Amino acid sequence: MWAHRLSRFNRLAWQPAPATPLLRRGLASHTRWFPQEPAEPLVKTTTIPGPQSKAALEALGRLQDPRAAIFASDFQRSIGNYIADADGNVLLDLYAQISSIPLGYNHPAILEISQSPEMLWALANRPALGVMPPKEWASILEDAFMRVAPKGLDQVFTTMCGSCANELAYKAAFMHFAARKRQESSLTFASPRTLQAYEESCMKNQPPGSPEYVILSFKQAFHGRMFGSLSTTRSKAIHKLDIPAFPWPAVRFPRVQFPLDGYAAENQQEESRSLQEVAQTLDSSPLPVAAVVVEPIQSEGGDNHASPHFFRELRRLTRDRDVLLIVDEVQTGVGATGTFWAHEKWGLDADNAPDVVTFSKKFQAAGFYHTRKLRPEQAYRNFNTWLGDPVRALHAKAIVDTVKRDNLLQLVNDVGGALMTQLEALQAQYPQAMSNLRGQGTFIAFDLPSTDQRNQFLTNMRSLGVNMAGCGDHTVRLRPMLVLQPKHVGIIADRLEAGLKRTFT
Amino acid sequence: MWAHRLSRFNRLAWQPAPATPLLRRGLASHTRWFPQEPAEPLVKTTTIPGPQSKAALEALGRLQDPRAAIFASDFQRSIGNYIADADGNVLLDLYAQISSIPLGYNHPAILEISQSPEMLWALANRPALGVMPPKEWASILEDAFMRVAPKGLDQVFTTMCGSCANELAYKAAFMHFAARKRQESSLTFASPRTLQAYEESCMKNQPPGSPEYVILSFKQAFHGRMFGSLSTTRSKAIHKLDIPAFPWPAVRFPRVQFPLDGYAAENQQEESRSLQEVAQTLDSSPLPVAAVVVEPIQSEGGDNHASPHFFRELRRLTRDRDVLLIVDEVQTGVGATGTFWAHEKWGLDADNAPDVVTFSKKFQAAGFYHTRKLRPEQAYRNFNTWLGDPVRALHAKAIVDTVKRDNLLQLVNDVGGALMTQLEALQAQYPQAMSNLRGQGTFIAFDLPSTDQRNQFLTNMRSLGVNMAGCGDHTVRLRPMLVLQPKHVGIIADRLEAGLKRTFT
Repeated sequence: MWAHRLSRFNRLAWQPAPATPLLRRGLASHTRWFPQEPAEPLVKTTTIPGPQSKAALEALGRLQDPRAAIFASDFQRSIGNYIADADGNVLLDLYAQISSIPLGYNHPAILEISQSPEMLWALANRPALGVMPPKEWASILEDAFMRVAPKGLDQVFTTMCGSCANELAYKAAFMHFAARKRQESSLTFASPRTLQAYEESCMKNQPPGSPEYVILSFKQAFHGRMFGSLSTTRSKAIHKLDIPAFPWPAVRFPRVQFPLDGYAAENQQEESRSLQEVAQTLDSSPLPVAAVVVEPIQSEGGDNHASPHFFRELRRLTRDRDVLLIVDEVQTGVGATGTFWAHEKWGLDADNAPDVVTFSKKFQAAGFYHTRKLRPEQAYRNFNTWLGDPVRALHAKAIVDTVKRDNLLQLVNDVGGALMTQLEALQAQYPQAMSNLRGQGTFIAFDLPSTDQRNQFLTNMRSLGVNMAGCGDHTVRLRPMLVLQPKHVGIIADRLEAGLKRTFT
Repeated sequence: MWAHRLSRFNRLAWQPAPATPLLRRGLASHTRWFPQEPAEPLVKTTTIPGPQSKAALEALGRLQDPRAAIFASDFQRSIGNYIADADGNVLLDLYAQISSIPLGYNHPAILEISQSPEMLWALANRPALGVMPPKEWASILEDAFMRVAPKGLDQVFTTMCGSCANELAYKAAFMHFAARKRQESSLTFASPRTLQAYEESCMKNQPPGSPEYVILSFKQAFHGRMFGSLSTTRSKAIHKLDIPAFPWPAVRFPRVQFPLDGYAAENQQEESRSLQEVAQTLDSSPLPVAAVVVEPIQSEGGDNHASPHFFRELRRLTRDRDVLLIVDEVQTGVGATGTFWAHEKWGLDADNAPDVVTFSKKFQAAGFYHTRKLRPEQAYRNFNTWLGDPVRALHAKAIVDTVKRDNLLQLVNDVGGALMTQLEALQAQYPQAMSNLRGQGTFIAFDLPSTDQRNQFLTNMRSLGVNMAGCGDHTVRLRPMLVLQPKHVGIIADRLEAGLKRTFT
C-alpha cells in the first residue's frame, strides 16, 4: 500500500511545483504529515547491506574508499523520515546523513525551491561571491540566515562546509586578536616599518606575521578535520593520527551525570573543575589564547552535555579576559535541540552573546555568524573564490520558511518529550544495558556497556528497520530530522526494545 | 538587437530542457556559437560599479564585507562570454568568477542538467557520501571524473572546495608518508604498544601521533587559504597576515624570461637553481618532507611558468627520494591551457605520473585524483560529512560531455593562438607598457610596469567593456571561459589597445 503511494509521490515530485498561496497552504499539512510515508519500516534483505548495496559499494570501491559505507541509498524512493536503499529496504532514519537532513527526504518545500528560477541561475552561474556577487545576494542572506541570526550577531560569513566554517572563524578570531595585540603594543600597519616586519615574516611562516597564537578547545570536542579545525578536535585518535597539528591546548569538558537534576551538586562541582582549567589556561598559557571554541553538546565526542550555567560562566571567563568565544553549532544548530540554536538555552543577553556561531549540516549552507568587530581591518584577508554557494543558501531559505511555517520547533519539543518518556521506561527496564539517557529536543543519546555491544546494537537496529549511529566510545545517538512525528515514537520505542533484547539476551 | 535576443533567451532558458537526441544535436551548434551573445560589450554607466551595483553592494555591506567586490552581477541577463551587471552593463568576461566558469554563463548543457531528475534528487537529498552514498555514485564518478582522469591516477577523492582539495590531499600524503616511516622503523599499529603511543600523543597534538612532517611548496605559490593549505601558500602577505602557520619550507620557483624560446639557456640555468634548492631541501630539511606541491603555472602568484623539462626533473627528484608529488590544478585544470590538465604537457608516462592532482574552480566540483597506494590504511581517516556534492559532480559530468562533444580543447588552442598573435603585436607596439607576454591556450598573461598602473588599467578595461583581473604584483591575467570564439579576439585586442592608450598616455 505505502509502496504504491511512494511511487505515486515520486512521480509527482519531479513535476515543477506551482507556487500559489493555495498550494502553499496545501503543502503545509502535506509536509506536516508526509502522507506518502510508509506505515512502518520495510526490511527485505536478511542483512544490510543487501546484495544490491554490496554491488554498488563494490563498484564504488574501484574509485573511492568505501569502507565506511553502511549501504547504498536510493534517494528517489526515500521519503520523509524513511530512507530507501538499493535493495528496496526502507528504514526509519535516525541518522539522517550524519545529522544533516533537516526536513526529511524529498520534502516538498525543498523540491519546490530546487526547481525555481532563482535556483536555476544559481546552479548555472556559480559566482565568486566576494568579487561579483549576484545583485540578489543581500536579500538571499536576509531570507536564509538573518531571520534566524543568533541574538547579538548581525553579520554572516558563508563557506562551503562545516570544517571550512570553523577554520575561517578561527582566522577571523586570529586577525581580530592580532590587531588588538598590536594596538596594546602601539604597533600599527600604518607604520611602513611595522608592516614590513609583519609581511616579511608571514611570507616565511614565522612570527610576528604568522603568530604563535592558539585556539583553546575542549577534550572530546569535534570541530572538523582540516589542519586548523583538526588541531582543535579531540574526539578520537582515528580522526587525528599522522596529521601534523598546531600545539594548541585542550582542557577538560565536564563529565556530568544523568539525569542532570538528579546530580545537581555533583555536576556543578564537575563543571567548576572544567571552568577552573579554562581560567588557568587563559591566564597562563605560554602561547596567547585568541579564542575558545565549544559545542553546546559535544556531538561526535559522545553527546556530552553541560548546564546553561557552565556556558554562561564560560562566557563570563572569556569576556573578562577579552578572549573570543566561538560556539560551534555545526551539529546542534537548526532546530533539533528544540531551539533553533542550541545555545539559546543558555539565556545570554545580546551584550553577552558569543562572538561567533558556526553552522553547516542541517542548514545545508555553511558559515558563521559574527559581530561586526570581527571584520578584518583590510579587504581580501578572509577570502576565497566561492565564499559559499547561493544554491545552498536558497535551500537554507526554504528550511527557515518551513521551520517557521510548520512550527517545527514545537514539533521537535513535543516529539522529543514523548521519545524521552519512552526511553526512560526502556532504561528502567534494561538497566544493565542502557544508561545515561540524555537529550534536548530530539537530540537524544544513551550509553551501552561497551563499544562492541554498541556497534552490534546498531547493526541489529538496521535489521529491525531503524537506521541509527553511534558517537563517542559507546554511545548511541538519535539524530532524527525535524519532521519526526508523534506516530514514529512508538515504532522507535518498540524496535529499540527489540534491538536491546537481540543484543543483550 | 542583441538585447532582444538576450531576453528571448532568458525566457526560454527557464523552461525545462527536453533531452531528445535531436535537441542534443541542436544544442551542440547552439553552444558553439552562443547566437544570443551581444555583438560587443555594452557599457551604460560612466563608472563601474554603477549606481545599481553600488546600491546592491551597500545593502550587502550591512551583512558581509563587500570591500573586494567590483560590481553586482545580473546572472539572469548574463550569457556565454558576457556578464551583465545590476546597471545593465554587459561586459566581455575574461575573469569568469576568478577563473571558475567553464562553459560561459547560462550554458544550455548546464541549464539542461540542472533541470534533470538526477539533479533534483541530488539537490533535495544531500548525502553523506562516505556512509550512505547514492547507488548511482560510482557511475556519476565515472562520468564526471574518470573519463578525464590524469594518466596513471585511477582514484578520485571528492571535496567541497579547492582549499579543501589541497588540505585533504596533504592529509592523504601525510598518512602515506607516516605509514612508510613506521615501516622503515619496523613499527606497526598491529602492535598495541605502538598504537597506544601514537593514539595518546595525537590526542595531545604531539609527535609521534601528530608528526612534525612538512609539505614543501614554492615561493609565490597559491594553494588555498585554510590553515594547512595557507602554510604552503606564499603568494602575498595579505593572504597570510596574522594567521598561525606550520613551519613548512618553501623554495625558489624559476623566474624565467619570455618568450621562453628566446631565453632557452638562461631559463634552463634558472630552472636548475630552483631544482637544486628542491634537492637540497629534500635531502637536508630538519623536518621530513612528505610531499612537494606545485602548480603547473603559478596562477595567483603572477602567472609564473616553467618548462616541461623543469617539471619532469621535479618528478625525478621526488621519485628518487620516495617523496610524493602533488600537482595543484585548481586554476590550471579543465582545459584553459589547451590540454584538459596543464601537466599533460610535461609528457610524463603513467609510471612517472604525479601522485596526486587536485582540482576545483572550472570543474565546479572539487577534489583530487590519486594512486591507489594513497588510500589510508584504515577507514574513516580521510573523511568528513559530505565528502563532495553530487550536485556539482553532475555539473562536472555535463562539462566533460560538452568539452568532448564541442571539441573545446581545439577551440581553446585556436583562439589562444589568435589571441597571442594579437597580443604580440600589441607588446611590440607598446614596449614601455607591456612585457613578458606568456600563455598556454587562452591562459595568458602579461606584465605592466607597476601595481598602480596595472590596477588603473583593469579599471579602464571595465569601462571599455572588458572584465579582467590581475595576479602577482603587476601582472594582467586573461581567464576567459572555454567557449571564447575567434570573433572575440578582435574585440579584446581593440579594447586592450584602447586600455593601454588610456592608461599610459
